[in-house]
Amino acid sequence: MSLVVVGSVAYDAIETPHGKRDRTLGGSCTYIALSASYFTKTGIVGVVGDDFAPEDRALLEQKAVGLEGLEQVTGKTFFWSGVYSADMNDRTTLDTQLNVFADFQPKLPPAYVNRPYLFLGNIQPALQWDVQRQMPAARFVGGDTMNFWINHTRDELLKTIAQWDFLLINDSEVRLLAGESNLRKAAQKVLDMGPKALVVKRGEYGAMLFRKDTLFIAPGYLLEDIFDPTGAGDCFAGGFVGYLAERSFDLHNGNFSVDELHRAVIYGSVMGSFCCEQFGVERFRTLTRAEIDRRFDEFRRFTAF
Amino acid sequence: MSLVVVGSVAYDAIETPHGKRDRTLGGSCTYIALSASYFTKTGIVGVVGDDFAPEDRALLEQKAVGLEGLEQVTGKTFFWSGVYSADMNDRTTLDTQLNVFADFQPKLPPAYVNRPYLFLGNIQPALQWDVQRQMPAARFVGGDTMNFWINHTRDELLKTIAQWDFLLINDSEVRLLAGESNLRKAAQKVLDMGPKALVVKRGEYGAMLFRKDTLFIAPGYLLEDIFDPTGAGDCFAGGFVGYLAERSFDLHNGNFSVDELHRAVIYGSVMGSFCCEQFGVERFRTLTRAEIDRRFDEFRRFTAF
Repeated sequence: MSLVVVGSVAYDAIETPHGKRDRTLGGSCTYIALSASYFTKTGIVGVVGDDFAPEDRALLEQKAVGLEGLEQVTGKTFFWSGVYSADMNDRTTLDTQLNVFADFQPKLPPAYVNRPYLFLGNIQPALQWDVQRQMPAARFVGGDTMNFWINHTRDELLKTIAQWDFLLINDSEVRLLAGESNLRKAAQKVLDMGPKALVVKRGEYGAMLFRKDTLFIAPGYLLEDIFDPTGAGDCFAGGFVGYLAERSFDLHNGNFSVDELHRAVIYGSVMGSFCCEQFGVERFRTLTRAEIDRRFDEFRRFTAF
Repeated sequence: MSLVVVGSVAYDAIETPHGKRDRTLGGSCTYIALSASYFTKTGIVGVVGDDFAPEDRALLEQKAVGLEGLEQVTGKTFFWSGVYSADMNDRTTLDTQLNVFADFQPKLPPAYVNRPYLFLGNIQPALQWDVQRQMPAARFVGGDTMNFWINHTRDELLKTIAQWDFLLINDSEVRLLAGESNLRKAAQKVLDMGPKALVVKRGEYGAMLFRKDTLFIAPGYLLEDIFDPTGAGDCFAGGFVGYLAERSFDLHNGNFSVDELHRAVIYGSVMGSFCCEQFGVERFRTLTRAEIDRRFDEFRRFTAF
């Protein structure tokens, strides 16, 4: 089955205790698509400037990520710069230049309109809504958001996520969206807003999946070395939705069993953990599906009782 | 099988966002013993002042906690006072009065000498060492420590934990003891110091168990209401060692299977979660073993994939 991912494609400058990169391929859409590409045919919808490097396009092509929806326009690609704290649990944004992303209007290539899976990366909720309307046949739709949209475009956001099969955000965003500090109560409030499932990312501490009637809690995978956490949450998203898209070949037409959803959370965690092992998207140059499945099995061994 | 617990018995003054108690039964030994009492015959070794209330003694007796080793002397019982932050992830100590605990010299009742299980609560390492020497027949010995002993009595501490079957501390203590910020690397360094297993408490985020050859990661149980986290880590310890003591009846003479150790971590998490549901030790007035086993099953359901 095939997936469409909408969101930002960017260049990042990153500094962690392990080193520094002045300009490396980034953006939520990039990470989500690279991660999902290990599971399912994935196409992206985004925009870059005329500075977008052929070698970065080549990396995406090497992973068979569809680029028909990657618009290239005059100007500079979205740029973000940040530095991580010593324990890498905090990061400070040094610079954000929206550049060509400021006027991003997602344009869906005709070939994408009938795709069954759609992940709406963290962009303005009105744009997410608009893309979803262009894909009325999509059977499984979800996405991400952030504190800025929760605070400033709440009505648009609520209208948008009410239609989603899943909302995938971090724990502080769940609390902010619900206005409730207890995560379990907050999750129920968010489910009342409409999404059929809520996937909660908790960084190194793992992830959770809430539905009205079920709860799944997964610890984080414990890495020996964390080089750079940038993009880990987006790689989680790519693994989660990518795995489900892959499974749907022989399964339930988009109505996943609880077990499938739980395994998708683990595949998400696995992809997030690989992402941290090298700077930016570097790990994806060598990562294989066999390594992914091996880590999934390891996860099961580390958590069974 | 039967367990001896050594540590502090105290009165606490606690303030959380849910309310306040001016004087409530506390102390690590109290929490560990109350928790372990649901699994195995448990006796405590500690000291209280002449202000120790008959109703507090009665609660321990009601749970069949052996009090032969609870010395009562002239003076005041150890007193601690603290206040929690709004999200309860931080707490500030307002007052600590060691009182009779300042001169605590654990005296083992003769009946305890041949008991097979020993948990050494967070006291001076030299005292932990001394108690262990008084119980040469103990088959399964472990305990807790804290930053103060790690920083100020490091040599004593290293000598002591080198003899232990398990060391049970929180993640920041693991990092401090190992001088290494990556938890996975730090855990290996701590295992090199001698304890056969390292159990790491991570508060609401769960717990882990490391051995030279295995790793187990458990997420935290997600509570609907957290009234007071005081004692949760000690209740974890009581559930962990209590469950193992119970199992050893028909098992391996202290050599537990990996599966038993992992289940003990989950029972620890279950006991820690119950502790948070009411102030101080209140939850133990009504808690039943059936509730405990039900939550263990729930844990399995919430984490299986």
